[in-house]
Amino acid sequence: MQSKSLDRPEPGVELRLEIQALTAEHAWRLDHGAADTLHELYTRDGELLGLPPSDLVGRDAIAAWGAARVQLPRVSRHVETNHRLWWSEEGLRGTLYASVFRSETTDAVDTTPLMVGDYEDLYAKEEGRWRIRSRVIRKAFRAVR
Amino acid sequence: MQSKSLDRPEPGVELRLEIQALTAEHAWRLDHGAADTLHELYTRDGELLGLPPSDLVGRDAIAAWGAARVQLPRVSRHVETNHRLWWSEEGLRGTLYASVFRSETTDAVDTTPLMVGDYEDLYAKEEGRWRIRSRVIRKAFRAVR
Amino acid sequence: MQSKSLDRPEPGVELRLEIQALTAEHAWRLDHGAADTLHELYTRDGELLGLPPSDLVGRDAIAAWGAARVQLPRVSRHVETNHRLWWSEEGLRGTLYASVFRSETTDAVDTTPLMVGDYEDLYAKEEGRWRIRSRVIRKAFRAVR
Repeated sequence: MQSKSLDRPEPGVELRLEIQALTAEHAWRLDHGAADTLHELYTRDGELLGLPPSDLVGRDAIAAWGAARVQLPRVSRHVETNHRLWWSEEGLRGTLYASVFRSETTDAVDTTPLMVGDYEDLYAKEEGRWRIRSRVIRKAFRAVR
Repeated sequence: MQSKSLDRPEPGVELRLEIQALTAEHAWRLDHGAADTLHELYTRDGELLGLPPSDLVGRDAIAAWGAARVQLPRVSRHVETNHRLWWSEEGLRGTLYASVFRSETTDAVDTTPLMVGDYEDLYAKEEGRWRIRSRVIRKAFRAVR
Repeated sequence: MQSKSLDRPEPGVELRLEIQALTAEHAWRLDHGAADTLHELYTRDGELLGLPPSDLVGRDAIAAWGAARVQLPRVSRHVETNHRLWWSEEGLRGTLYASVFRSETTDAVDTTPLMVGDYEDLYAKEEGRWRIRSRVIRKAFRAVR
């Protein structure tokens, strides 16, 4: 997925910031009790891969996961940095780094991240808005708890 | 504070980057011995809320706090990510995530953040520059030390 | 290096995002097995300073370091935030915060950063592209391992 299409221009500033806003909104909903609306940020055939226990394929699967996720007392922050964006043959590709802080109780005192790694994203425009078509989670560091 | 004003346009790229520069400058001054100039980045009626032991209301209160803060041997880094920005009925609103690394001595060897959470900001233009009118600190994770 | 040149304009949005893309690319190559191409992101007289055991001066020195670095089984993520950018008398200056996660083995389970600090950068345009002319690493927090 690293190959860039040389005959395509670099993504412009408006597109870069729109994608950053999309990924920040994704993290915000997940971290602030709105995981049940997360599927709105994916295309209809959107995928979230590399998430235990199983991959989520299609917006309906993501909606079902989010409806269960929002019931948990979990505290989380998905800290996102190092955005990269380019046009590939499949469309608009991006990567970002994620540091995921997580507690299964509302007494959140462990400030070491559960994982530090990458999101490998493919984006597509649907109904006039950029959405996530595919996100692959790649863990680099994983805390033993 | 999550409600967006639907009849207002999305903030443009220049405004987004100007606000990001403002918040990065705020962190830099705080972390590099210039807390005594921090109040310049707030409006005259600016507020910094959720900061122990007490809220700071008005630029003078922030200036007094900064003048004391700059005397401490504290080492800190306020790591800021996940910027969101939108027009609300009260004006320009934003949120960002903050991971705060802090040591009370110059021998800074603890690389776990003291807190991970959110800043909920309101911005206003004063004397031709965007400034912070209100910042609320919301801790999500807090280390026990 | 903090002095800003008052008679120069603020860097524009395209330049800001181009520099952010450059620094994200630098981190990506370092963290994904491509340190042997890192020197391409520096000017011919480029420098990487503050890196133990010795400073790297000139693109050839960086290339030699990268060729050795890419052989290590090291896992790393250079998490970059808090970008600042301004025109100085020497040219385009920037700072960013870096949190460096690192493991010397592929079994990467320690999610506390090895260091948290700053990069102090000078950029220059060479052969039509912005590159790093000088990067100084300043550690603020350093884990004892």
